Amino acid sequence: MNESLFPAPAVALAQADVPVWEAVRFTAEGLVPAIAQQHDTGEVLMMAWMTRETLAETLTTGQACYWSRSRGKPWRKGETSGQRQRVLDVRLDCDGDTLLLLVDQDGAACHTGRRTCFYRAADASGTLATLTEPLVDPEVLYGPGGGHP
Amino acid sequence: MNESLFPAPAVALAQADVPVWEAVRFTAEGLVPAIAQQHDTGEVLMMAWMTRETLAETLTTGQACYWSRSRGKPWRKGETSGQRQRVLDVRLDCDGDTLLLLVDQDGAACHTGRRTCFYRAADASGTLATLTEPLVDPEVLYGPGGGHP
Repeated sequence: MNESLFPAPAVALAQADVPVWEAVRFTAEGLVPAIAQQHDTGEVLMMAWMTRETLAETLTTGQACYWSRSRGKPWRKGETSGQRQRVLDVRLDCDGDTLLLLVDQDGAACHTGRRTCFYRAADASGTLATLTEPLVDPEVLYGPGGGHP
Repeated sequence: MNESLFPAPAVALAQADVPVWEAVRFTAEGLVPAIAQQHDTGEVLMMAWMTRETLAETLTTGQACYWSRSRGKPWRKGETSGQRQRVLDVRLDCDGDTLLLLVDQDGAACHTGRRTCFYRAADASGTLATLTEPLVDPEVLYGPGGGHP
């Protein structure tokens, strides 16, 4: 069963010779940005960073594992909050420097308790407006002090 | 008329005090990553980088203008290829370090002539497969040598 808006074709057109490890162009710090998109609604939920090791863990386990730059350690999405991300597909862009994860997100992807991190919009003058309120109080998910990685 | 999958609410919930210029956390190089998503299909097309100035131009003109890191100058999407991106909405994430553009993309967003840059998928073993073929020969868009920014 694949209810993704963006399913992989049943038969891939070609197999590249290189595995994803060799095709990804990590930064000097060993990181690559990863965009998480809800597979069936198309909503872009968040962007975070992965290392070679957390990408490998993500592919192996099927659960999103990022690299927390502030904590300097792997960040298993939902480990504290319960708001897990099941990863259905991992895409790589043309020049190998960005990943796109098609995911199934439990509840809120954002540490503010909102579904998506992209909840502010700028108008033509640059004025920011907040588009959505939290689904859940972040202190319920993370305890006092919140849960930012 | 707004046919976006992700329209802004008719009435924003709150106006933030800060303009987007002050809310964006640019890198030490003065850059911020910007994800471009087709507004009506939800397809994630590409990720590129913006400076304060190219973000300002994008908001003012409604046409995507990135910063080409390789060329060291503004990259007005579609200027050479004709494959322009009209920008319908600019979103900012919770910690201000990533932009999401809801766009209307003419033709191919990718310099390979594909609709999206994310045309390769990794399976659980890390093997990459190519999912789609180009819509158009990049030499038609860019001339011999292609058009990578």
